[in-house]
Amino acid sequence: MLGSGNVATHLGAALANAGHRIVQVYSRTADHARTLAEALDAQAISHLGDLNPKADVFILAISDDAIASVAGQLPLHLNGIVVHTSGSTSIDVLQSHARYGVFYPLQTFSKGKTVDFASIPLALEAGDAPSMAQLESMARSISGVVFPCDSVQRLSLHVAAVFACNFTNHLYAVAADLLQRNGLSFDLIKPLVTETAQKVMALPPAEAQTGPAIRGDQITMEKHLEFLHGEAELQQLYALLSTAVQHAKRSGNNA
Amino acid sequence: MLGSGNVATHLGAALANAGHRIVQVYSRTADHARTLAEALDAQAISHLGDLNPKADVFILAISDDAIASVAGQLPLHLNGIVVHTSGSTSIDVLQSHARYGVFYPLQTFSKGKTVDFASIPLALEAGDAPSMAQLESMARSISGVVFPCDSVQRLSLHVAAVFACNFTNHLYAVAADLLQRNGLSFDLIKPLVTETAQKVMALPPAEAQTGPAIRGDQITMEKHLEFLHGEAELQQLYALLSTAVQHAKRSGNNA
Repeated sequence: MLGSGNVATHLGAALANAGHRIVQVYSRTADHARTLAEALDAQAISHLGDLNPKADVFILAISDDAIASVAGQLPLHLNGIVVHTSGSTSIDVLQSHARYGVFYPLQTFSKGKTVDFASIPLALEAGDAPSMAQLESMARSISGVVFPCDSVQRLSLHVAAVFACNFTNHLYAVAADLLQRNGLSFDLIKPLVTETAQKVMALPPAEAQTGPAIRGDQITMEKHLEFLHGEAELQQLYALLSTAVQHAKRSGNNA
Repeated sequence: MLGSGNVATHLGAALANAGHRIVQVYSRTADHARTLAEALDAQAISHLGDLNPKADVFILAISDDAIASVAGQLPLHLNGIVVHTSGSTSIDVLQSHARYGVFYPLQTFSKGKTVDFASIPLALEAGDAPSMAQLESMARSISGVVFPCDSVQRLSLHVAAVFACNFTNHLYAVAADLLQRNGLSFDLIKPLVTETAQKVMALPPAEAQTGPAIRGDQITMEKHLEFLHGEAELQQLYALLSTAVQHAKRSGNNA
């Protein structure tokens, strides 16, 4: 396991729990390597020269901009498969290796909050069929949702996740801040947050759309923009998102 | 009950289930009045002249722009309380009546999907203390979350709800559309939608923020913007939301 951040931690734990042996944990920062290695009953290394070349899989669970560099420092002609776990990085950055692939878990990981890996979709890609089969077997040992996904599809998945997860969370933060500044608790809006997420489990989001924008309720939208006076960024967000809702309605598609 | 839309339907059912008697259902469209009146065991009327003036409460569960007009057509000097159910309409539009107030359920209602009213926050406002007490008693009979809320606070609640619910749902729709166009199912992203909503039940949204924007991962953001080439509105949304996430981080507050 190369890396010691959230993905390395959660993925490492899931693999170890499924009976895989984590041989080594690599991190440039020796302390980080040691902490995760202890949790995974593995050897900690902080120099790539100490890498055990006999592992079956070399998982680069590191930041996107480090993948090419770390992959370039691994010995060529490894028998194991070199994989990264990134949504937005093409498989091609690994193609100097004999066997390579991608093992992308589509979930938001936070330190200290355990996630049930069994329901996390794992998007797989590989340079050859035997590597794909091997990655698939490893993936199925920890998740019930495993699917092949080329680099363009994976990028679309990552962009979609940024909209549906990261940006959505920011909208929660906007709501929390508005309420706090008006002496109200974010708790008040929690049932609505839950209901909004639950609705799209059963209904396509485009059909679940409600609110002033989809109703074309110009008076309410103007009241809201006026309420946000002096807050240019929030006004801009409100206007752009309202327009987007109305465009999606007109075009009759999902976006 | 004046109105026959989603709020009238769900609120009417909750009140009837709690043992309140719905005397009449008014809608300009006789068919709509009849349908809801039958469900609520009430009399259907489609002319305000037929209004029974003896009701305890007159609930204007109608579109915002109709409230002032319908309220103006009600007899003055009613003994009952005239209330509206709007988030963005000031209590002042009802002040020509002897007793008036606001009964605002903070939830997204869809036809055909029942909602458990017990957990829906009800924001109350009234022109005088006895009316407030009466509305509070009615509210507590159907919900466990009842709180006083002036018109400015209620507007902030409504704006916050638009961000955390309506706009969030649109971001789900954007994600669904991106995935569909790349041959992937929205199902893949559902665990992430659920996890993102569940996270903020326990953690302030600002602390739950993840993704390329909060990490300052410029390379990934550029890849994503390039992926969205030719889609000006999505690019604009992506850029604006990413900037907002970064501003929120810098200012250290929730928005």
